[in-house]
Amino acid sequence: MNSLLSKSQRDRLSVVLVSPRNPLNIGASARAMANFGFTQLSVVAPYEPHWREAKSAVGASDLLQNAEITENLAAATADCTLVVGTGSLEHRKPEQPVIPLPELAPRVRDEIARGGRVALVFGSEKRGLTQEDLAHCHLLAVIPTNPAQPSMNLGQAVAVCLYELCTRTPGSTHELGAPGPSHSGTRETAASDNPPASTRDLELLAVVVEETMLAANYSPPDLRNANRHDLNLLLRRLALTRRDAVRILGLFRRILWRLKRESNRT
Amino acid sequence: MNSLLSKSQRDRLSVVLVSPRNPLNIGASARAMANFGFTQLSVVAPYEPHWREAKSAVGASDLLQNAEITENLAAATADCTLVVGTGSLEHRKPEQPVIPLPELAPRVRDEIARGGRVALVFGSEKRGLTQEDLAHCHLLAVIPTNPAQPSMNLGQAVAVCLYELCTRTPGSTHELGAPGPSHSGTRETAASDNPPASTRDLELLAVVVEETMLAANYSPPDLRNANRHDLNLLLRRLALTRRDAVRILGLFRRILWRLKRESNRT
Repeated sequence: MNSLLSKSQRDRLSVVLVSPRNPLNIGASARAMANFGFTQLSVVAPYEPHWREAKSAVGASDLLQNAEITENLAAATADCTLVVGTGSLEHRKPEQPVIPLPELAPRVRDEIARGGRVALVFGSEKRGLTQEDLAHCHLLAVIPTNPAQPSMNLGQAVAVCLYELCTRTPGSTHELGAPGPSHSGTRETAASDNPPASTRDLELLAVVVEETMLAANYSPPDLRNANRHDLNLLLRRLALTRRDAVRILGLFRRILWRLKRESNRT
Repeated sequence: MNSLLSKSQRDRLSVVLVSPRNPLNIGASARAMANFGFTQLSVVAPYEPHWREAKSAVGASDLLQNAEITENLAAATADCTLVVGTGSLEHRKPEQPVIPLPELAPRVRDEIARGGRVALVFGSEKRGLTQEDLAHCHLLAVIPTNPAQPSMNLGQAVAVCLYELCTRTPGSTHELGAPGPSHSGTRETAASDNPPASTRDLELLAVVVEETMLAANYSPPDLRNANRHDLNLLLRRLALTRRDAVRILGLFRRILWRLKRESNRT
């Protein structure tokens, strides 16, 4: 296979399907993954009967049998350092950076080369990714479709995105050296001293920051959801390393401890 | 849409499905065409009940209603000047040039810019394109899939191929100027004085050449099919212009007339 990602690099990319409905689409997504040599499938909150049907279909792959099932998107992307939402730009105005799919490949290869893990997230057939889903994404990759018929079938969207990642050579829009085992190997070793923060790191940080906001009476109950949403977006925009995340977490834990001590005294 | 083919250029590319079986795949192929702004669908020898089911499905598009139905691949590609087969390279050794899909876009844009029409041909789900189908193709574009699971779902293969044609910018492997209305417009006018031969031109030529081979006792009955196959391949490899085809046709008609006159005399 004339692929620009090695086998072990492809294993560091997960395809995440959020609440897929149609068993045929689930099967088609798994087939496209096998066609392009990807193995890591996560399914978030599947509709149980349809998921069972997809798994028990004739010819259902090992990939489908071994898929990780999670309750929410945060859990599915816990160990990922770059979470990429996919879709068309129909009705929504996303709050994070949007790039056309043809520009995604160098970003993904770069992230994997520096020791990260990437999630490629696909929304349900009916409504795509929700605002809440998108708040967990670092960026949104948009397939350049016809405005008169923008919405792609799920299985076809997965195939197009994975094809793109396997075949697009580094373009002029992004500075990335030609991929090669020794080169990316070197980068990986060099970068792993200071790896990017994973979703798990960011989620933990968000919990403590939110608790701090509450303890400081910053966040009144009716704004709590909106503030959490903004916080999620902010944390992903900052491109924190794990070391950054640990440091900020320590700071907020300290603040929180002080705030709680104060309120116990009064 | 960030497309490298204009609307009128996309209308000069047909998607041809040869004997598709699954109505869902037919619908998915039509949907991918709409997603990427293509309109011309031809279906060769469909299995009638499945074709009816695909057309009468909820949400079936105008594109599907207006599809051209033909008995064979030659008829479906009659007015095309570049016929591109698609597939993986599983068991067969094709006799015509094979290129990886990422290199197809410049060829297609070039052909359309010089006034040609292009057919992108997909075989049936079960067996792909047969040797006989392939004999009608000028070249074979191969999707670079994993050797362990090379065969793509029909609807997904159509989506990947059309995405490729809409997004791949001219690469270094092929000399083609940056596409633009005035540039391609100029090429088109300049080239249309001597357009490439269409499938119709080549089919007519093949009939007369074959008749000549028979009249000259060149082709014994048991080699007739093999010779016709080789002739089809040869005519497509030559990259004839329409003027070439007309000239050669004239020559063979003359030879044929003489051969028949001779045999009537004896």
